[in-house]
This record gives sequence, C-alpha cells and structure tokens, in this order.
Amino acid sequence: MSAPRTDAGASTDLVILQALRGQSTGYVSGAELAERLGLTRSAIWARMQELRQRGYDIEASPQHGYRLVSSPDALVGDDLLARLGRGTIIGRQIQVFRETRSTNDVVERLARDGVGEGVVVFAESQTQGRGRLGRSWVSPAGKGLWFSVLLRPRLLPGETTRIVILAAVAMVRALRAFRVPAIEIKWPNDILCRGRKLVGVLTEMQAELDLVRHVILGIGVNANLEAGDFPAAVRPNATSLRIEGGQPVDRAALAVTILRELDQAYRRLSAGDFESLAAEWAASCGTLGKEVCIRVGDRLIRGRAEALDDTGALLVRTEHGRLEAVVGGEVTLVH
Amino acid sequence: MSAPRTDAGASTDLVILQALRGQSTGYVSGAELAERLGLTRSAIWARMQELRQRGYDIEASPQHGYRLVSSPDALVGDDLLARLGRGTIIGRQIQVFRETRSTNDVVERLARDGVGEGVVVFAESQTQGRGRLGRSWVSPAGKGLWFSVLLRPRLLPGETTRIVILAAVAMVRALRAFRVPAIEIKWPNDILCRGRKLVGVLTEMQAELDLVRHVILGIGVNANLEAGDFPAAVRPNATSLRIEGGQPVDRAALAVTILRELDQAYRRLSAGDFESLAAEWAASCGTLGKEVCIRVGDRLIRGRAEALDDTGALLVRTEHGRLEAVVGGEVTLVH
Repeated sequence: MSAPRTDAGASTDLVILQALRGQSTGYVSGAELAERLGLTRSAIWARMQELRQRGYDIEASPQHGYRLVSSPDALVGDDLLARLGRGTIIGRQIQVFRETRSTNDVVERLARDGVGEGVVVFAESQTQGRGRLGRSWVSPAGKGLWFSVLLRPRLLPGETTRIVILAAVAMVRALRAFRVPAIEIKWPNDILCRGRKLVGVLTEMQAELDLVRHVILGIGVNANLEAGDFPAAVRPNATSLRIEGGQPVDRAALAVTILRELDQAYRRLSAGDFESLAAEWAASCGTLGKEVCIRVGDRLIRGRAEALDDTGALLVRTEHGRLEAVVGGEVTLVH
Repeated sequence: MSAPRTDAGASTDLVILQALRGQSTGYVSGAELAERLGLTRSAIWARMQELRQRGYDIEASPQHGYRLVSSPDALVGDDLLARLGRGTIIGRQIQVFRETRSTNDVVERLARDGVGEGVVVFAESQTQGRGRLGRSWVSPAGKGLWFSVLLRPRLLPGETTRIVILAAVAMVRALRAFRVPAIEIKWPNDILCRGRKLVGVLTEMQAELDLVRHVILGIGVNANLEAGDFPAAVRPNATSLRIEGGQPVDRAALAVTILRELDQAYRRLSAGDFESLAAEWAASCGTLGKEVCIRVGDRLIRGRAEALDDTGALLVRTEHGRLEAVVGGEVTLVH
C-alpha cells in the first residue's frame, strides 16, 4: 500500500510540517515521511536539521520518530500553510517576506500578473507601511502581523464596504478566540481595545466602472509591540495584544486563526449572506447609537449613527432628521 | 525689451509650433524666434528643417519669415500642446507613443509614480488595446485616436459614473463640432453614429474605500478606419468618421477639439455642476425612454430606462414597478 498522496506542488518542508503538526500522538516516523516524499531517511534527517536551524525544536526518538516540541517566533509560509490546512480560499498560497515596502504593493503586483484570489503576503517588517488616506503605519520587524490578502469579489465598486465589514467581523472573532477583552469596532475599519487602536485595515481596489477587478485587504495587527515601539504621537491611542495581555502572543497561531476567520467570513459574503455579517458587525460596533462627526473629504457630517445599509454604508441621522448613507471618512465620537 | 517669456520647461519645437500657429498674419520672423529661444537664426533654420523632415510643410520667406502651410497626419505631442494652448487641466502634458500595449497601462504607471492629473497619453497604435469588461479594442496604426487621460477627481468610488457621463458629453460636443451626424449616446459609455459604434470609453480607477486615488479615462475614437480595418465580427456594428463623412479627418485637430471639450466638461464637474452635464447627456442619450435589458454580472434587469440619478447611475423602472439604479453593465434595447 502506498502512502497518502500530497499535493503535487507542496514543498518538502510543507509536507514535513503538516505531518509533524498532524500527529495526535505527537510523533511521525522517519520511514513514513521518507516514503511519502520519495526521499531517503537520511535526506529526511537533513531536512529536520535545517528546520532546527530555523528555530524549530524537533525531538528525534529511535522508536517513535520525530516530534515537534516548539516553533520559532517567526512567520514561515510553509508552516502557516501546514497549520491552516487545505480547502480555504484565503491562504491557499502564502508568501512571507523578511522586509518589504508594503505588503499591499506586493499583492498589487501579483494581482496585475493575474494571480488568483486568496493569496496572502506577510512581511516581518514594512519600510513604508500604509494606513488609510495616505497615512503611514508603523510595522517594526517581528512585532506584529503585517499582511495583505488578494480578493476578487463579485461586487460593484460602491459595494466594497462589505469587504471592510467582513474583515472587521473576522478580526473580532479571531481576537476573542485569543481572549482579548474589551474589543470594539470603530466604523468603518479600526478594531479598538479599551478605546485604543489594535488593528487597522486598508482596503484598496482596482475597478472598472461596474466591475471590481480586485480588492486588496491590508491588515496590520499590533501583536507584540511594546509601548516604546510606537512613535510618541501615536502612543496614547495605540495598543497591542502584548500590552493588553501582559505577555507575547504566538504570532503564527494568531495569523492562522485570523486567516481562518477571514476565509469563513468571505464564504458567508460570497454565499450572499451579508445580512448576518452586518448584524454581527453591528453587535460589536462602538460607533452605532452614538453621536458622531464624520469628515468625508471636505464635508462634515454630524448626527447619530443608526445602522448599516445593504452596501455596508453607515446610516447617519443628521440634525435635519435626514438619513444619510456615509461611505468611509474620519469618524469622531461627539461627547 | 526682452521677448515674452515661455514656460521654463517648454521644448524648442513647442515654442516654434506655438509661434507658427499663433500668428494671424501666418508669418513669424526667424529673428524673433531666435531671440525668444536664445538661439542663433541658423539654429532656428535647422529646427525648421527637422520639422519639415517630420512632415511639416513650412514656407520660408526672406521678408516675412516662416509660415506653416500644412501639418503631417501624425500626432506630435508638442504640436498638440501648441494647438491646445495653455491653461487647460486636461492636456497640460501630452505624450505620444508610436506603439504601446495600452495607453491606459502607460497612464497607470504614471499615476503610480505620482504624476498629477491632466496628463494625456496617445499611441499611434496599441498592441493590446482594451475595451470594457476585458474585451479587446482594435487600434490600427495611424487610423484612430487611442488615448488615456489621468484624472484625480474628488469622488467616492461609487460616484465615478459621473466621469463617464462627462466624457460622453465632451465626445458628443467634439463630434458635433466635426459635423458628424446622427450621434447618440448608448448608456453608459458608447458613442454611436447611425446606431454603430464610433467611440468607446474605458474607465478604470484605483481607490480606497472612500477615496478615489485616480481615474483613467481611456478613449478610442474610430477616426480614419475603413471598413476593412475592422475585424469581420465587429464590422457590422462599428463605424468611423471617415466612413461616415466619406473622407479622412484631421486627427490632430480632432484630438485638440476633444481635449478642449473634456477639459471644459471636467471643470463643470469639478465646480459641482453635475446637473447640467447630466441634462446634456440625457438630451443625447438614445437609451433613455427605451425598454432595456441590462446584464450586470449574473443579473438581468429588464425595464424602462427613465433617468440618471445624482451619481450617474441609470434609473430603470422594472416590470414590478420598482425604480432600480443600475451602474454599468451590458445594455440591449428591447424591440
């Protein structure tokens, strides 16, 4: 009997990491791996040595084989894939860069080259990380999750607010799974913890008039930043999982949880179920029900944030009693 | 007294062509040109020789100086600039390529490099000219006007239909100035002559959720194509100014007229006067008042095209009596 087949294109490391992570006993035998990969047992041994050099603590037992004891605090594409498992749209392909200008720029190039949706690009650090409206985003090496996802949704340009809603819902779910307390969504796309920014989302699109070619969802998660990692100007309004929880988080585990939640939320949207996403979003949104002041370009809109409409726009009841649909902009809560 | 100053960056050819085209007497003296440009009279003579080699018929008279008799049937950036005059936004910078993949692609790169709005790129031929929704656009060398305009309007992604309306209005005005009969707009962005396609517009944008970074208006004008220049599949539904008028048109003059009309329409939009543009558009639109069937992605919308809304979307009264706002899509008239 032959060993179970793996994907034709899967790398040796991916197969090894899948096997190490997939064993409920904890051990996978060198003989089995060798057969599955068509390599000699000494070649498998050499690969294990290399993984050890990359920070993986792998125990070897003559009786039982190999066992993964711990992983390095680094993002490794093959390992993220191994942990994510197969069958997701988002994360069907993962690239990790040590440093890049901006992961959105990398994904933009991939999109223009015709790469399919679901590809995710992480960078350990970004030299020119971007926030919304041309602002910069601090992305120090090894401290956060800075990544971008390529989507090709069937939406009109005016409907892409839905992607932001989806991302916010997925982020809230992932953060709650990591027991981060006091999470709330600040419309349209910030995630706050105790009122301070924990996650930012930058949604960029390329479109014809009536056809979105692609959307790039750029997400920055302040995972293990310490107060001193933030520039002074940002510090009072920013926080991280580490600051909130008092200890570093496993960034790879967090990344996998986020990608899985994004994938599920995207499937809900694609299945036409925006309504339940919007309801879930509303339940976590600190902006709804509040008096707000929103700057959209030159305009200032004041009123009470009442609900979302079916495109994802915020419905604001203005002073004049009119209900206005607002797409994006700079929100200030009025006290 | 010194000669009038020209723009610091203006090329010698631009200044010479401006002078030749700007003289009501028809003549411009070599001495005056030499002084204005800080060149010797023999250097001016050499430039004139070079312009002659590029197809300009320039007469030289010992008494009066130089006079432009005729221009070549070629698009020359400096000459288009000279004819357009100063003070326009659209066309403040003009590049002409002999051949390119797609002028929209060239402008996209310029946009990403931070070039300001108003730059226009022409190509004598495109190897991969694009129409809407991924279709190809036939762009044989020297037969048409294939060009793209970079705009940075203050619009939301859902409002860019306005740019299409603006372009259609400008095209209708320019074609009427060229006495093309039986022009009508097919919503959203084709210009038909006697029911056949004369002009196509492809609007592409790069945007954040609530901020259009840039819009690229790609326009293809079938100027001097003959029936045999169109692929057989397209021939029955396509036409050109040459086919309609029975003789070739001056492409450069047409280009200048179009750019001037685009500039004026863009100023109207920027000044907040979308209403009058929409009214003008409606007056030339063959789609309004008709029973239509519109394919938007997977959906088929049937009904009577009644009006435009304030974003530029088409309002269709469906069979159920509901008024639906349609953004783009494939329109068929129902007979």
